[in-house]
Amino acid sequence: MTDWSQRRGRVRRAPENFIAPELVDEINAKGVDDERRRFLRNSFVAASAGLLAGSAARAEAVDPADGDPAILNLPEHSKTLGKPVLTNPYGMPSRHESALQRRESPGLTRVAASSVSFTPLQGLFGIITPSGLHFERHHQGWHDIDPEKHRLMINGLVSRPKVYTMDDLMRLPSVSRMHFIECGANSAMEWGNVAVPSVQYTHGMLSCSEFTGVPLSVLLDECGIDLAQAKFVLAEGSDGSSMTRTIPITRALDDVLVAWGMNGEMLRPENGYPLRLVVPGVQGVSWVKWLRRIEVGDQPWASKDESIHYIDLMPDGLHRQYTSIQECKSVITTPSGGQVLLDKGFYNITGLAWSGRGKVSRVDVSVDGGRNWRTARLEGPLLNKCLTRFNIDWVWDGKPALLQSRAIDETGYVQPKQNELRAVRGTRSIYHNNAIQSWLVAESGEVSNVQVE
Amino acid sequence: MTDWSQRRGRVRRAPENFIAPELVDEINAKGVDDERRRFLRNSFVAASAGLLAGSAARAEAVDPADGDPAILNLPEHSKTLGKPVLTNPYGMPSRHESALQRRESPGLTRVAASSVSFTPLQGLFGIITPSGLHFERHHQGWHDIDPEKHRLMINGLVSRPKVYTMDDLMRLPSVSRMHFIECGANSAMEWGNVAVPSVQYTHGMLSCSEFTGVPLSVLLDECGIDLAQAKFVLAEGSDGSSMTRTIPITRALDDVLVAWGMNGEMLRPENGYPLRLVVPGVQGVSWVKWLRRIEVGDQPWASKDESIHYIDLMPDGLHRQYTSIQECKSVITTPSGGQVLLDKGFYNITGLAWSGRGKVSRVDVSVDGGRNWRTARLEGPLLNKCLTRFNIDWVWDGKPALLQSRAIDETGYVQPKQNELRAVRGTRSIYHNNAIQSWLVAESGEVSNVQVE
Repeated sequence: MTDWSQRRGRVRRAPENFIAPELVDEINAKGVDDERRRFLRNSFVAASAGLLAGSAARAEAVDPADGDPAILNLPEHSKTLGKPVLTNPYGMPSRHESALQRRESPGLTRVAASSVSFTPLQGLFGIITPSGLHFERHHQGWHDIDPEKHRLMINGLVSRPKVYTMDDLMRLPSVSRMHFIECGANSAMEWGNVAVPSVQYTHGMLSCSEFTGVPLSVLLDECGIDLAQAKFVLAEGSDGSSMTRTIPITRALDDVLVAWGMNGEMLRPENGYPLRLVVPGVQGVSWVKWLRRIEVGDQPWASKDESIHYIDLMPDGLHRQYTSIQECKSVITTPSGGQVLLDKGFYNITGLAWSGRGKVSRVDVSVDGGRNWRTARLEGPLLNKCLTRFNIDWVWDGKPALLQSRAIDETGYVQPKQNELRAVRGTRSIYHNNAIQSWLVAESGEVSNVQVE
Repeated sequence: MTDWSQRRGRVRRAPENFIAPELVDEINAKGVDDERRRFLRNSFVAASAGLLAGSAARAEAVDPADGDPAILNLPEHSKTLGKPVLTNPYGMPSRHESALQRRESPGLTRVAASSVSFTPLQGLFGIITPSGLHFERHHQGWHDIDPEKHRLMINGLVSRPKVYTMDDLMRLPSVSRMHFIECGANSAMEWGNVAVPSVQYTHGMLSCSEFTGVPLSVLLDECGIDLAQAKFVLAEGSDGSSMTRTIPITRALDDVLVAWGMNGEMLRPENGYPLRLVVPGVQGVSWVKWLRRIEVGDQPWASKDESIHYIDLMPDGLHRQYTSIQECKSVITTPSGGQVLLDKGFYNITGLAWSGRGKVSRVDVSVDGGRNWRTARLEGPLLNKCLTRFNIDWVWDGKPALLQSRAIDETGYVQPKQNELRAVRGTRSIYHNNAIQSWLVAESGEVSNVQVE
């Protein structure tokens, strides 16, 4: 059986698309990166000066007159009765796509119940993430909660505190909106210049779905929020970690949803079934899963997950707290690390761009490490705080190439280079890395994750 | 285990949501409908004059001070370690949603390999159809084709006929667009006034996805289409039925895609993996699955599936051939047939609207069988030849109500009433029924499919 998801459009996926244990050790150790960075930069310069490999020729479509056996001999499936409807009452992908799945980086956390599984961005199209491939990030594992027994309490600075059943919530006026969700720790390993092998691991804590729910503002209004006193809300999950996050009241009353729907159906258990908060543009940890409580208060709570996690260690040794907006960012998903270009000739370079502050207005692509830029085609609809797919034509001449994308959002913010971001933020952060990503295409066609100044 | 998908927002789903065999016999017999139609109309008038049932009271949210046990006693999942990431490398819905699945109408066709499974619209949100619930309509069953061996031939009035591999196609410039797909036979049973029980069976041959592929115009250009001679293309599938459909060249060069992607991943096998045609706005049968050939010609082919199927029998006994555009249409999905309203009080009436000619511009909703109309909220983005979700507030007073929705598209076309459509088309058609759908809410809260003049 062909593992088709590993090879498409003359681009071969890495056969074993995982993070090697020794690289995980390196990631955990950090700080050993300067030599490696220099090595990669130098090797690109050396490779650029190298000779063109002449082996790969551009694939030509076959003329039917040539007698392609695949078209002259009718395949079995054209001569036989196929499978009936409802073979799968709930359908699944082709058996040829089995390698396209969420993957964990082994050893990244101590137990798998507090780990991450990454979305395989390298194999996806458009902007919608199939719900079965939505990334996972749990703090104490996931449960398949009985929605009949689930409750949402709203308390604090409200005149009518309430406990809602799912039935109560789902009869209220609902809205549906498409938004990206990105973990604040996405691309974390790039801070320390430890280049993980593929876009699944560099950027795969990113997904995008159509979410359905009731605006939080409707619930707060129904509970009689004290607008004179209220400055913040606390969102609390019902998993074992009791995940709690502070959200400013202006944001809570803006576009936050108490959501039950994702891509047309109920949320998946791993993503908060039956109820999660949707906080558009903000890091995923604030999209509290298995949501059980909203408290209205007049100051931030400084809960453990906003005091010792999800904070930014700055070069001066101080931590930045309560950063939450996912700034404008983009990444090329094909060609990307771990893939191999099998031919010279035409390729459709494609990738994703997003901004926590609104719409993406432009994406530029470079194939020479940022010396020259061309503007990519953006696929509509261009939506607020949502992924945007970009495409751009490229004829690969077989020489080494250094691919980069740079997104600009409607506020005019330009996605920074690695060194621009490091100049402000240093190299000891974990969270909120939105730097330009570089992929090196070698003469062999092999694509690798490199970091360049 | 709660079958939660059967009961949400104080709306209970029918416990056995299928078409009874005797109804199928009736559907197959047809023509016995006039008495039934009169009965339904009269019963609504009688019911409207009836007394208000006083038993159901509006649900109130519980005050936490009342000591709701569900909130006072921490559930097990708040005290225990949950399941790890990658429990499911490809995730699935909650076990509480198992009743929400595609369903067949038993006996509708002779064998299940040439049957239909319907999308459960009554349980879905937003506009994206989860790929696992996309409706199926096969003519000779489905296969899971090896994409490595699959070919697309383009021949006929072209100067450079070609056979493409999937690799050839997937390296070309691609686009992603969200479109609805509706079988031309959707709502077919309503023509004969045989009211099937639920929206899954009245309108469930309808789905909506983000499709990704290469524009057909790019391929025809690459093959050197003879624009002076070309008037039509033929699309041919590689299943056993060799499904073939004629498409006018103006449409083929407009927005038709040769698509491999659906909702971010490769097409599902039941929906044409690895390649299908996407013909926006046109009935599903033209979206040829398992696409293997495009031929360019100067006249329509009159293939079996456009000569003896998918044609409209008119009142004068002649057949209309080559109708294909799915005209503007809408349907309320909640409350809808087979559901039961458990309370009086507030409900969010929600449904879907679409037009094969462009964008939906307005949807009106009536709760009194079309005497009075209110304009519903349309959820953005409003996209071309795509589903649009509408919502409108309703306070049910416990009296019988007759719910209808009426969509208007950007061309100004207004979705017709049943009798308006019948005046032109008669009652002997199978295909292309876009009439206004009526749901009767009885005093008991039971919702049923009725047909009214």
